[in-house]
Amino acid sequence: MLSDTTAKINILKHPTSNSWLKQALSNLNVILLDHSHCERKAAGVALNLMFRYPSSSKLVRELTAICKEELEHFEQVNQWLEHLNIPLAPLKPAPYGAGLKAQIRRQEPERFLDSLLVAALIEARSHERLGLLSTHCCDPALAKFYRSLTASEARHYGIYWVLATTYFSRDAVGQRLEELAIAESELLANLYPEPRIHS
Amino acid sequence: MLSDTTAKINILKHPTSNSWLKQALSNLNVILLDHSHCERKAAGVALNLMFRYPSSSKLVRELTAICKEELEHFEQVNQWLEHLNIPLAPLKPAPYGAGLKAQIRRQEPERFLDSLLVAALIEARSHERLGLLSTHCCDPALAKFYRSLTASEARHYGIYWVLATTYFSRDAVGQRLEELAIAESELLANLYPEPRIHS
Repeated sequence: MLSDTTAKINILKHPTSNSWLKQALSNLNVILLDHSHCERKAAGVALNLMFRYPSSSKLVRELTAICKEELEHFEQVNQWLEHLNIPLAPLKPAPYGAGLKAQIRRQEPERFLDSLLVAALIEARSHERLGLLSTHCCDPALAKFYRSLTASEARHYGIYWVLATTYFSRDAVGQRLEELAIAESELLANLYPEPRIHS
Repeated sequence: MLSDTTAKINILKHPTSNSWLKQALSNLNVILLDHSHCERKAAGVALNLMFRYPSSSKLVRELTAICKEELEHFEQVNQWLEHLNIPLAPLKPAPYGAGLKAQIRRQEPERFLDSLLVAALIEARSHERLGLLSTHCCDPALAKFYRSLTASEARHYGIYWVLATTYFSRDAVGQRLEELAIAESELLANLYPEPRIHS
């Protein structure tokens, strides 16, 4: 899994800017609330793929495990919110998610490949950013919590990538991942004014 | 929880027919495959409600736990399918799910109440039918597996009912549950020709 983790860090075309980190550290409460939404959405992505491809047994097995893990993280983030008296509330999403979704081609099997790789890239970026928060966050307990999540995000990246190579050739995966990684970094080029995990 | 369990059994307007049981016992492989779809759908129902009502902390807490549990059952049913060499495959759904969904009123807060009660009724019926399978199935290991699931289905019924009474008056819940329970039993009055958990 270590090589996948390394691959994951390498695939991001541009590292997160200092301006994002500064914005996030100044708004940790909003970041935590957005993080809760991200974990629920990540569970939704895994479950939706199982609804769309219910006969792919390897996919179903791996994504069931991911979905359960995302729900556990969702519970943990929500416990943090409760501990800090931050009420659950909707948040206007940054354009990142919709922008990545727009990159997914409509026709099968391209849709399948793109869906797996977009999920992989989101996990890769989450890994990078939760890692930054774990290093720079001033609250040691919160930093420890972020650190505990980064390994999962890397593993999830690896699983989505392995699934892509299960159903598609390595060449096809590598070429499309390259294109989508460029789009992913471009979506983060301009910092969204509201603090978000993926702003 | 015992009183909820009892309430659950009582709420079903008509018990399952012998013809369903006969059909199910003669087609246990199809029933297992359909059961796998049911568990994934149950996880989807819980997760969708969390997406729709993300600020209701009690709902989010309870449904996160239900969703995780449904995914565990999904994994267990899929292990049974693998053990019996039954490949994962889509199945044409019986009209039951769409029929119940059509009962959900479109406007809030009625939509919220109806969604919780429809989920409760599906869990109640699952409890009843998995209980029948556990009693009448000839394979002792499979019967034991069904028995292990029935308590969860009853508990899930109870949680959906408690959530309904958290956000709505007992009178409103009781009256609407009565109406929906009648509709639920009517949907099962004519046995669907294909064997399904909710045919």
